[in-house]
Amino acid sequence: MKKTLIANGTFITMNNAQAVARGYMAVEGTRISYIGEQMPGLKEDYDEVVDGSGKMYLPGLVNTHGHAAMSLLRGYADDLALKVWLEDKMWPIEAKFTERDVRWGSLLSMLEMLKGGTTCFVDMYDKMDEVARAVEESGMRACLTRGMIGFPVEMQAAKLKEAVDFAQNWHGQAEGRITAMMSPHSAYTCPPEFIERVVQAAHDLQLPIHTHMSETLREVKENEQQYGLRPVAHLEKLGVFSRPCLVAHAVHLTDDEIETLQRHDVRVSHNPGSNLKLASGIARVPDLLNYGITVSLGTDSAASNNNLDMFEEIRLAALLHKGVSGDPTAVPAVEALRMGTINGARSILLDDVGILQAGMKADFIGLSLDKPHFQPQTDLLSHLVYSASAQDVEDVWVDGRQVVRGGECLTLDEEKILYEAGKCFERLTS
Amino acid sequence: MKKTLIANGTFITMNNAQAVARGYMAVEGTRISYIGEQMPGLKEDYDEVVDGSGKMYLPGLVNTHGHAAMSLLRGYADDLALKVWLEDKMWPIEAKFTERDVRWGSLLSMLEMLKGGTTCFVDMYDKMDEVARAVEESGMRACLTRGMIGFPVEMQAAKLKEAVDFAQNWHGQAEGRITAMMSPHSAYTCPPEFIERVVQAAHDLQLPIHTHMSETLREVKENEQQYGLRPVAHLEKLGVFSRPCLVAHAVHLTDDEIETLQRHDVRVSHNPGSNLKLASGIARVPDLLNYGITVSLGTDSAASNNNLDMFEEIRLAALLHKGVSGDPTAVPAVEALRMGTINGARSILLDDVGILQAGMKADFIGLSLDKPHFQPQTDLLSHLVYSASAQDVEDVWVDGRQVVRGGECLTLDEEKILYEAGKCFERLTS
Repeated sequence: MKKTLIANGTFITMNNAQAVARGYMAVEGTRISYIGEQMPGLKEDYDEVVDGSGKMYLPGLVNTHGHAAMSLLRGYADDLALKVWLEDKMWPIEAKFTERDVRWGSLLSMLEMLKGGTTCFVDMYDKMDEVARAVEESGMRACLTRGMIGFPVEMQAAKLKEAVDFAQNWHGQAEGRITAMMSPHSAYTCPPEFIERVVQAAHDLQLPIHTHMSETLREVKENEQQYGLRPVAHLEKLGVFSRPCLVAHAVHLTDDEIETLQRHDVRVSHNPGSNLKLASGIARVPDLLNYGITVSLGTDSAASNNNLDMFEEIRLAALLHKGVSGDPTAVPAVEALRMGTINGARSILLDDVGILQAGMKADFIGLSLDKPHFQPQTDLLSHLVYSASAQDVEDVWVDGRQVVRGGECLTLDEEKILYEAGKCFERLTS
Repeated sequence: MKKTLIANGTFITMNNAQAVARGYMAVEGTRISYIGEQMPGLKEDYDEVVDGSGKMYLPGLVNTHGHAAMSLLRGYADDLALKVWLEDKMWPIEAKFTERDVRWGSLLSMLEMLKGGTTCFVDMYDKMDEVARAVEESGMRACLTRGMIGFPVEMQAAKLKEAVDFAQNWHGQAEGRITAMMSPHSAYTCPPEFIERVVQAAHDLQLPIHTHMSETLREVKENEQQYGLRPVAHLEKLGVFSRPCLVAHAVHLTDDEIETLQRHDVRVSHNPGSNLKLASGIARVPDLLNYGITVSLGTDSAASNNNLDMFEEIRLAALLHKGVSGDPTAVPAVEALRMGTINGARSILLDDVGILQAGMKADFIGLSLDKPHFQPQTDLLSHLVYSASAQDVEDVWVDGRQVVRGGECLTLDEEKILYEAGKCFERLTS
């Protein structure tokens, strides 16, 4: 079992007992074995000793909502309303996506995420075998789910079978780095009976559920018109919350709906960048946090963001709700960083990810402190939240294995991915 | 006169006649002499030929509101209301600032700005000779102004003399890269008679005026209580708008006030990051733009941002107003980039900055396209606005002189600045 020591580093642990630790962190195999001031053992005990001086380390970022393959559509359609963007621009071109497109689009996203400090991501898409294989290659951690749109009705059975097969084949694979969920795409794209069948499958497989919910006002109103219920009550009635559940967006919520989410311990993936760009609105994050709901962060796809920089989402979460509420203490820096790390892990039921602490999985990232925007070295956690970007990340480890070193990805062929992604886009739009 | 050629580049010109140009840009001395598809002359005609393949170039970013020396206070006081932050945290420690602190704090900001693609900035502070000398050294372009707080009253005359002396000594210096303005700090920190004296001085010196205005609701209410007028009418009455005027923030405005600003051609520096962080509110930018007001972007100081990344302000401007208004076409990408470039230049009366075009000043920046978050290469302007960050900037030219090459600042000693800034902060807080 490989033993690595990070020596003389500064560690932003996300562990409430010891928020900032200076000194040493040891990794044995896939897990952190020690973190503290004293050097654990002798240098000779380690296969590798990394000089951590002048660096700050934190848990890898967890991106809890996205569609990786859609990075092929970055910049393809900007500044449009969600319905137009989705129905007139995204869905027609996505219908042309082949396995090849999903592979290279997903790898493009994984490359961007890994280099930017995201070690774990949620992906809801189609042709998920390609995504899972790419996750294996990249060395990332991921929670994957075949997103199912319930139309046309005659395709429902085949899609559900595909989702079940995918979950059975891949849950726990890639040395445990891959887990699975079951995903009706949303209440507005799935008839109620179909959602109920997906819920039943999730029960059978003992898997969590992931879905889009209450992203736009229009969606909420149409749900009321069609089913006589707002989305939260509708999904509750269909049993969606009877499984551990992660909902993406949750922008338009009443107090009653927030209480319902709390009662069922539903997790919320807040996607501030995408919600702003598509003009969907601004989620009630301070209220969700006050209710004790687990709120994490997602980029959504690069087609509506348009990057996968989780530091940007963390900063948006910290800034946006202050400005909107008029309360400068809303979503303090530490809370925003928690949303991007430990809360993300908890949202997808990973109990051993998201904190730098002995016994936890060794998913962590390193940034150099030697930059003008990190000076003076007053409050490093504040600098991470309010001043850092994906481009600051230099080193990344997932499951105890270094996957990015000095800004270079060790697991993926960057040049080839950029080339192939470009070719895919050319073919899709030719 | 040095002649430089950028060959085989992609140029985001901000020139409406030709938004994207591919090919060549020539620089002679301090100005652009050619931009177009054909190579102008022979390689032998140039002192330097830069390989621009795989790069995109755009005008240098213009940061129209800030307090550079305050980068020493980055992370020193977060998540507080403006009044508390200013009166309890900032002002007491700023009172201790020596010339030395202003020098190293300002250089820290200039280093961050230059490396991040900002070629020109507005600075309102104290001990401005230090700032001007640092601008000379850095090679940046800057519009500098001694910010005057009108209390204690017995200091007014000395401060005004200092501001006038500074403007007379420095306006047009550093090969014309430095210009000056006159700055009453704000209506809430300057008695009306003092503002009138500053206005008179601005008339005498033929200089523009820069001031903080309507940043918080509290400020607006107190202005009404104290003077019976909202800040816009108050400043109008005092003659502030009788000079070309740039106001920072302008968050809380009525329709009538927007009309007044339009009538006087008052420019607005929108500071979305700082306004969100201090929970000051969200400026009515789409309305300001509809009225034809020149809106530019500012970071404000790193103490309330907490970085000086103008790409982040550009992106915030493009995202925030969509989400708040519910209109996904609000502040389209090109408009946001205009705010960060040409509008910035116009705000400080620079007619020959902010566009890549023959005859304009050669202030421009280069970014490598070879990054995952710039793929596929669909819409480069969209990528710049929605996906880029300061850390993507590789090369920077100001006034025809290269000041950053491959991410390294050529004019400033980075290591020394980080060290000295750290020492200053230690002394200030010891």
